[in-house]
Amino acid sequence: MSTDIRRIWTELEVNLDLHDELLQVMARSHERTHLGQKNRPKAMAFFDHALHASHDERVAEIHAFRKNGGKSIGTFCIYVPDEIALAAGVIPIPLCGGTGWSVNYADKMFPRDICPIIRSTFGLSFSGTCPYKKLKDFAVGETTCDAKKKAWDLVGFKVMEVPQKKNGIDRDLWLREVYAFKDMVETLSGVAVTAESLSANITLVNRKRKALRRINEFRKLDHPPISGLDALLVSQVALNQDTAAFAEAAERLAAELEERVAAGISAYDGNVPRPRVMMAGTPAPLGYAKVHFVVESSGMSIVADESCTGSRYYTELVDESRTTLDGMIEAVADRYFSIDCSCFSPNTERLDHVVRTAKEFRVRGVIQNILQYCHGYNIEAKAVEKVLAKENIPSLKIVTDYADEDLEQLRVRTETFAELLRA
Amino acid sequence: MSTDIRRIWTELEVNLDLHDELLQVMARSHERTHLGQKNRPKAMAFFDHALHASHDERVAEIHAFRKNGGKSIGTFCIYVPDEIALAAGVIPIPLCGGTGWSVNYADKMFPRDICPIIRSTFGLSFSGTCPYKKLKDFAVGETTCDAKKKAWDLVGFKVMEVPQKKNGIDRDLWLREVYAFKDMVETLSGVAVTAESLSANITLVNRKRKALRRINEFRKLDHPPISGLDALLVSQVALNQDTAAFAEAAERLAAELEERVAAGISAYDGNVPRPRVMMAGTPAPLGYAKVHFVVESSGMSIVADESCTGSRYYTELVDESRTTLDGMIEAVADRYFSIDCSCFSPNTERLDHVVRTAKEFRVRGVIQNILQYCHGYNIEAKAVEKVLAKENIPSLKIVTDYADEDLEQLRVRTETFAELLRA
Repeated sequence: MSTDIRRIWTELEVNLDLHDELLQVMARSHERTHLGQKNRPKAMAFFDHALHASHDERVAEIHAFRKNGGKSIGTFCIYVPDEIALAAGVIPIPLCGGTGWSVNYADKMFPRDICPIIRSTFGLSFSGTCPYKKLKDFAVGETTCDAKKKAWDLVGFKVMEVPQKKNGIDRDLWLREVYAFKDMVETLSGVAVTAESLSANITLVNRKRKALRRINEFRKLDHPPISGLDALLVSQVALNQDTAAFAEAAERLAAELEERVAAGISAYDGNVPRPRVMMAGTPAPLGYAKVHFVVESSGMSIVADESCTGSRYYTELVDESRTTLDGMIEAVADRYFSIDCSCFSPNTERLDHVVRTAKEFRVRGVIQNILQYCHGYNIEAKAVEKVLAKENIPSLKIVTDYADEDLEQLRVRTETFAELLRA
Repeated sequence: MSTDIRRIWTELEVNLDLHDELLQVMARSHERTHLGQKNRPKAMAFFDHALHASHDERVAEIHAFRKNGGKSIGTFCIYVPDEIALAAGVIPIPLCGGTGWSVNYADKMFPRDICPIIRSTFGLSFSGTCPYKKLKDFAVGETTCDAKKKAWDLVGFKVMEVPQKKNGIDRDLWLREVYAFKDMVETLSGVAVTAESLSANITLVNRKRKALRRINEFRKLDHPPISGLDALLVSQVALNQDTAAFAEAAERLAAELEERVAAGISAYDGNVPRPRVMMAGTPAPLGYAKVHFVVESSGMSIVADESCTGSRYYTELVDESRTTLDGMIEAVADRYFSIDCSCFSPNTERLDHVVRTAKEFRVRGVIQNILQYCHGYNIEAKAVEKVLAKENIPSLKIVTDYADEDLEQLRVRTETFAELLRA
């Protein structure tokens, strides 16, 4: 840890002692979940380091950018369009907390029975351990769930309205919200979004998503060259790091995975057959990999993810064929509007997506990974279970939070599920 | 209980034994919460009976209506516009369950950690004790919260989209939803909504809301002629009974309250001063009055309510000055769009409304009555607490469900709050 970064943290009013404690907890957790894996691609080093870098190098980077007059905003959900922020010269910083360490600090303002993502995030803020608190001009939330929506109101975030149906008028409403977001970031930076700058950033963000898609494709193989835990980490880091730097690292990883496949190197070894499973449900922000860890260490291989920190983030690209600024904004809006979050009613799109992915990746079973108190995914789990059952794909619903206390109880259930899938 | 109604229940596939058990439980609960009160207006007899009538006479009424070709729909939330359903000759039946008795029957399909209103409602349905299950053509839900929205998807209800902001485009979206609802009920009944029929039903429903407003006004007096528990019951029944019959009963009650005021008769007696309080927060459907009961029996007088089973239901009327059908539909849409449910972001309207009501009714304190797992009202409670504190109005937040187990624990808190307010 350089003296420089500690000076920056101090400037950002970070509580150094608590922050050191947090970094240690995160490092220990990552060591247990990820570093113990055998046969890891060398290119994972970038992603392993990102957990630390998100508090260190990335902070220094944005700090320097801001010292030179640059602007940055906090975001929370994959509905806030990075392409447009970047085109206005504004850095979007995802704020989602993935650590259980900070959850109880949220008690200051929030109920205990809301989702741990919100509690972890604001717990970091309230405990003075989120370096981004003072490293942004404002934050932009969205209306994808009750708890987030009301949290934004309490803390005075700006809010993008994500509609709840997918009719024509909903799409019009969303397009307006995207335009309002463009106005917001333009006003902040004083930089107008142009066809050139937006086009360049659409290409850039697409490049990142394409790299993620390429990595994901290898998971279709009988012997995936990357584990589910590592694939999750890659997706998590995608949200946090500089877009170009991330795209390069992801491309390096994809190239290495190609070599591994050619050389017959799998991420998994051992003689016991490992059932292929898919994880579906709520996001797992950077720092949180409990269920992925317990599933893979119970002898299953996670070869597909359906979540905001999985395929939902990178499957769809923005159409690059549009030439006018308005056309591009529309293309961005449409791409984000195609996200099949459980916030939509009805949500057959998501049900179809889950089944399609399960088949494409030839999984034997699906684990529904639901963060406690997320009513949307929790209730929709029944519908997911039903469509999967129709295809004779067994599913296991796990409702949990960031705490480690239930880890061994979960293991009993995941090991039983693994046995069932092997039978 | 007549043989006739038992025959009807059988026809409606009601489980007679379980249903008898439910009716007994509801009667005992009502006896404890309401019938033990002294100095009650005689006109409350209609409302006391409504709990039973909602399973008996009202069922027989709608059953006969349907035998003659009439149509009825289930509704859940005060966003579904009664005026339009009635104008198409369709009876809207509110389905909200208010009994803890049925909550666990919901386990068949729903998680335990969602709000008891949803669980009670579907618990009634799954246990075969909701006579309305087979007494409607379909049900219409809305998108005011995550849990309800996803519940409607699971059970195949139709869904009206309530937007999440209050901008122009949101209002346009809502107007379209109201038109779509009109089409839906017209298609069902084969009866076109006309300016005449809509005007008549706007007047009728306004008459009901005016009667409720008149009753509520008496609660501003130093010695209210009606208790908070009884005022709640009146509001609860407003949702369930035939509109005209209810309006008459409410008008009779209002007239009696006027006489009581003239004669100096208060709903409350005793020498200990009873602090005036307001109840704010989630709805309390017919059958549920636990917190109102514990508050009033702890020596406080509930003289104002801010909830969907309180002032939010009747404060705003539909503008009667419009002459064209489109104008009237717009007036209906605007009236419903003015509801300040916690589902909106931002929701300063509600915060202002709470403070304004607290002042108008000269309360000493506010009790925030929150049903567990209702993220919207639960998180917004912090904002409500803050605006009240600015006005030096103390508030107490109670988060609970339909179960009686915490009643005496709640009493410790409400008695302490009463002491604080008396000091």
